[in-house]
Amino acid sequence: MYDCIIVGGGIAGITAAIYLKNANKKVLLIEKGTMGGILNKISRIKNYPGFTEIMGPDLASNLYSQVKDNEIEYILDTVIDIDHGKTNKVKLKDKELECKYLILATGKEARKLGLPNEDELLGKGVSYCALCDSNFFKGKDVCVIGAGDSAILESLYLTNICSHVTILNKYPKFKGEAKMLKDLLKKDNVTILYNSLTSSLNEKDGKLESITYTQDGEEKTIKTSGAFVYIGSTPNILSGLDLELDGKYLKVDSNMQTNLDNVYAIGDIISKDLYQLIGAANDGMIAATSIIKKLNQE
Amino acid sequence: MYDCIIVGGGIAGITAAIYLKNANKKVLLIEKGTMGGILNKISRIKNYPGFTEIMGPDLASNLYSQVKDNEIEYILDTVIDIDHGKTNKVKLKDKELECKYLILATGKEARKLGLPNEDELLGKGVSYCALCDSNFFKGKDVCVIGAGDSAILESLYLTNICSHVTILNKYPKFKGEAKMLKDLLKKDNVTILYNSLTSSLNEKDGKLESITYTQDGEEKTIKTSGAFVYIGSTPNILSGLDLELDGKYLKVDSNMQTNLDNVYAIGDIISKDLYQLIGAANDGMIAATSIIKKLNQE
Repeated sequence: MYDCIIVGGGIAGITAAIYLKNANKKVLLIEKGTMGGILNKISRIKNYPGFTEIMGPDLASNLYSQVKDNEIEYILDTVIDIDHGKTNKVKLKDKELECKYLILATGKEARKLGLPNEDELLGKGVSYCALCDSNFFKGKDVCVIGAGDSAILESLYLTNICSHVTILNKYPKFKGEAKMLKDLLKKDNVTILYNSLTSSLNEKDGKLESITYTQDGEEKTIKTSGAFVYIGSTPNILSGLDLELDGKYLKVDSNMQTNLDNVYAIGDIISKDLYQLIGAANDGMIAATSIIKKLNQE
Repeated sequence: MYDCIIVGGGIAGITAAIYLKNANKKVLLIEKGTMGGILNKISRIKNYPGFTEIMGPDLASNLYSQVKDNEIEYILDTVIDIDHGKTNKVKLKDKELECKYLILATGKEARKLGLPNEDELLGKGVSYCALCDSNFFKGKDVCVIGAGDSAILESLYLTNICSHVTILNKYPKFKGEAKMLKDLLKKDNVTILYNSLTSSLNEKDGKLESITYTQDGEEKTIKTSGAFVYIGSTPNILSGLDLELDGKYLKVDSNMQTNLDNVYAIGDIISKDLYQLIGAANDGMIAATSIIKKLNQE
């Protein structure tokens, strides 16, 4: 019986594991892919306190070293199902594990355009997070692809950093808040292209150079240094638990507890305003210390 | 006119500065001592995600490098007074600066015992944070010095990590919650010494070796590897602002805004459950992004 099983070995899950292990709790970390999670797909990081600049996979590797250095037990495997009750039973392909507390830290996936070289250009012009990557686009012309609140908010953010922001919206209008759109339209360095469906990301020397889109049946190409894609994202929610949602994301209280009293959720899987590395780590610390306090009172 | 002045160059203030600068805002960081703040007084850190182990001054130095790399404007000087109004006027000894938004990040000071070699033994047996430093005391005998809630809570935490925990309480009883004391008394590796006033920290080979205390007029010495001092702490609150408090600490909302709408507070100066590095950084990120959003809507 584990005190706590953490599903998801990104920065949120690993931070929780470090705090639980430091408190001498029996903790198990389960990661289905590579330890460090989404960090492995991020290129340069310049806003994480402690590193002037670090590559995502390097920070992932540091976190993995921390797991090993702290002698945290971990398994690289996929959770198939969870059976929640007075304890939680976590089912893997060929075994079942039991824990008093469960922390879900399985993250989210940004929805992709589905264009051939999109993955390749990630960190080389393509980004799914303006707040994370804008630093690399100071004074440059960029495009934002999307039609919702996030596309408007991030465009507003980028107008203050980039030379010019062009929004490619495949619909004839925005689905976002009128208020935010009004703020955006006050800026003199933004162009909005409606009915404009992005059809290809064009590269030169391994970097994004332009975007081709179809507007009202006509094919056009715009030169750009950046494509910020905001067409939605999906949290990786495991089956088997009757968890309360806030929109698509898990709803948690200030201790990161879900509606189930021995199930916590942290990082990109929960509903929150900002999806940042430092915030995910903070979630992990909060969930872990809350669980430690409960375990210490048993 | 600055968009934002941040008073205090610890991890909270520096993180806020990084986010504001990345958003192209005119930001100034003012630190009265050494950049990195309290980190300069912390020895080994093992629970900050990204570093298996790092010395406090090294993390401070990394943060300072980040300030320089991001070309963040900073001043090493002491703020004498603040004049709050539609804008904030920040007074230094020989100049006055003005900003739209102010972030207070001046931290707190742990109250010390006032014993001769206390500073010297910091990180060599003496600690003011069990959650931060317990990892270095696994399986060892430690003492907790204090008489309040924190002393009880941290002792409870340490009983699960250390071989034995002795509490030196100078009063005949605790000022803490009965509930927590009850949980603590269930543990079989804790001893509480009442009416016991710590009189000296004794070192050997540069490390804490024992503590001498006076109990009911009699002088006694206890061998110990650690002295966790929990006799209170004081936030460094600047004069000149009419800020709402929660106890001794500043009260902020979920965006880190104080009761004054252009004054924010982050890190150890605010009222919160856990005072951790990762939490301070998270505060900085939240305050900065909230201010950026407001500035972008001007």
